[in-house]
Amino acid sequence: MPKPIEYEASTGEVRAVYDDIRATRKTDFINNFWKVIAHHPSTLSRIWDSLKRVMVRPSSIDPLTKEMIYIAVSVTNNCQYCIASHGAAARAKGLTDEQFGELLDIVGLANETNRLAIGWQVEVDEAFRQDA
Amino acid sequence: MPKPIEYEASTGEVRAVYDDIRATRKTDFINNFWKVIAHHPSTLSRIWDSLKRVMVRPSSIDPLTKEMIYIAVSVTNNCQYCIASHGAAARAKGLTDEQFGELLDIVGLANETNRLAIGWQVEVDEAFRQDA
Amino acid sequence: MPKPIEYEASTGEVRAVYDDIRATRKTDFINNFWKVIAHHPSTLSRIWDSLKRVMVRPSSIDPLTKEMIYIAVSVTNNCQYCIASHGAAARAKGLTDEQFGELLDIVGLANETNRLAIGWQVEVDEAFRQDA
Amino acid sequence: MPKPIEYEASTGEVRAVYDDIRATRKTDFINNFWKVIAHHPSTLSRIWDSLKRVMVRPSSIDPLTKEMIYIAVSVTNNCQYCIASHGAAARAKGLTDEQFGELLDIVGLANETNRLAIGWQVEVDEAFRQDA
Amino acid sequence: MPKPIEYEASTGEVRAVYDDIRATRKTDFINNFWKVIAHHPSTLSRIWDSLKRVMVRPSSIDPLTKEMIYIAVSVTNNCQYCIASHGAAARAKGLTDEQFGELLDIVGLANETNRLAIGWQVEVDEAFRQDA
Amino acid sequence: MPKPIEYEASTGEVRAVYDDIRATRKTDFINNFWKVIAHHPSTLSRIWDSLKRVMVRPSSIDPLTKEMIYIAVSVTNNCQYCIASHGAAARAKGLTDEQFGELLDIVGLANETNRLAIGWQVEVDEAFRQDA
Repeated sequence: MPKPIEYEASTGEVRAVYDDIRATRKTDFINNFWKVIAHHPSTLSRIWDSLKRVMVRPSSIDPLTKEMIYIAVSVTNNCQYCIASHGAAARAKGLTDEQFGELLDIVGLANETNRLAIGWQVEVDEAFRQDA
Repeated sequence: MPKPIEYEASTGEVRAVYDDIRATRKTDFINNFWKVIAHHPSTLSRIWDSLKRVMVRPSSIDPLTKEMIYIAVSVTNNCQYCIASHGAAARAKGLTDEQFGELLDIVGLANETNRLAIGWQVEVDEAFRQDA
Repeated sequence: MPKPIEYEASTGEVRAVYDDIRATRKTDFINNFWKVIAHHPSTLSRIWDSLKRVMVRPSSIDPLTKEMIYIAVSVTNNCQYCIASHGAAARAKGLTDEQFGELLDIVGLANETNRLAIGWQVEVDEAFRQDA
Repeated sequence: MPKPIEYEASTGEVRAVYDDIRATRKTDFINNFWKVIAHHPSTLSRIWDSLKRVMVRPSSIDPLTKEMIYIAVSVTNNCQYCIASHGAAARAKGLTDEQFGELLDIVGLANETNRLAIGWQVEVDEAFRQDA
Repeated sequence: MPKPIEYEASTGEVRAVYDDIRATRKTDFINNFWKVIAHHPSTLSRIWDSLKRVMVRPSSIDPLTKEMIYIAVSVTNNCQYCIASHGAAARAKGLTDEQFGELLDIVGLANETNRLAIGWQVEVDEAFRQDA
Repeated sequence: MPKPIEYEASTGEVRAVYDDIRATRKTDFINNFWKVIAHHPSTLSRIWDSLKRVMVRPSSIDPLTKEMIYIAVSVTNNCQYCIASHGAAARAKGLTDEQFGELLDIVGLANETNRLAIGWQVEVDEAFRQDA
């Protein structure tokens, strides 16, 4: 992989995002994801912007649940980095070992029933069709 | 798709599972998923058994969150049936339109950052490595 | 979708492949897949060539098993067309309803345990590592 | 990953499943998958239960074909652990190098034609539509 | 699906984004994607913002190539809507039938060789390892 | 993984393909992908044949764009080998760091909007439906 761009080596737009990450998360630690995508500064600022809007901003889904949803997607897609980073974030927000085990149970079972519904070509029940 | 096996036409192991679905969910309605996989009775009983253990049994993750995790996987895998059925289940458990929108936001963003982490080949931070 | 190119309207390279499909399969029926990719004749001839080498040529895996493997992939990828076409091919080669149900059971369970192995980040056992 | 729970350290439900795995497989070897998901005992017992019903129970699909189907899904999903473990299981059941090469050929080609059918938006032939 | 929110019915943040879409694309036509995600206005503005930065802003990859990349991903993920919408966008930017056929050829072949590399567990060549 | 079959150890059909790879690419270097699938010679010759027709043959899409499309698929499927090998091929054909960053931006965003379109169940606009 490209070498991470460390804080001390950062300048301009990258430095500004790094400072915002530190201030928002109240820690000097910046994880590799940001330090690698910093090689393309417009990705760094765009994704950080999206992450703040979706994951950081207080909203109708609590922070721990958000992390569990993130992990569910990351496991389904086999993103080892994201499982590790959002696993750490979830534990920092209170995820217990019991909840982690249950989360993977749900992810596993959903992946199974998804394929059963697809393979058996199950038609959507009239009762489930709806307009907003 | 194979025609759903209606309750009235069911016998033996299939009927027993149908009765348990009705009793567990406190409704006569049985959705197409079960009525189609009933063509292979051992699938029907195995999956219903798993679903009860994972989704119905009270546990450390609340029922609405479980449904949101199920939807996150189903959207990532593009299972239209599962999005419809678990979307209905989630709404029945209190999912609001606002929460649904946020859920899809998280699923969308996770799918994006998964590929950025993969494409940039980001190495897992030492701080995220852990043993149980 | 682009309109299928019918046999009667075909010429040149497309007609030659159509004739080979008919001769190889001993039927006049040509399914839509071929009649649609015929809009790009080099795709038609390349894929038909690959299919003959992989699926038609007698080999160490019997024809019905080959179709079951094809269906397993198609269900995992959610390709409705391929499930339908290879489902028909498998039935023509003797796939029973019981076997179809079992096939989907295996596909479903493998999709589940794949995610459990990924989510739990299980390390490959020394005993499973091997060189050819 | 969480450290595998070794047989000697296991108790209760975990020990009972371990004993059943050993008895069923007629070997003392228990692979990492089980020893890691053992951190969540209800996953261990549920999945072992499913695996016995789907993969171990004599049925209409022979054991080697079952393993090939498992590998086809695991390769499509990029589960390195599952490719390694079910690859070993398949070889133990008689999979030859020639068959392994053919299996990957089919998996590769199916992944290609799945996307061609999807990208060209091929409509399912009337002849392939069917009711059970 | 939720009913699209038409331009005439839009207000506030949604109306502002709709106006920007119209002005940016120099057409009154707004496709369903935007009119449906408008049910969650923060998704609408966030995604439109990202799309402008990634797809609309003049950059080092030409507009037609961008659309082909978008289609490659959409076909791999089986997103019918995205294949249709970005297919239309690509044709508007000059994509020929010949190029469309070639694009699907590449997408198909890459999906095949991806699985061959994964299934054969090919190790990355020293010559391909690199730091930025 | 199976040990790569080196050029010096190759014979017959494998040697013939190796020679063609060297002649076509004007280099003695043969990357691991070919040297591993060479364990199944009919895969080697079939895939090399396809690759020449799709990727090497001059056509309506330029060579660098072809590589970008290949990378887009490989990132979406999480094929580390293919990202590395086609990344190297793309750089050899002139891909700049800026273009690589943009490419991943498009891949990331497409993966996100694919799931939004799927999750919101957006219906294809009449304007996007078309016949060839």
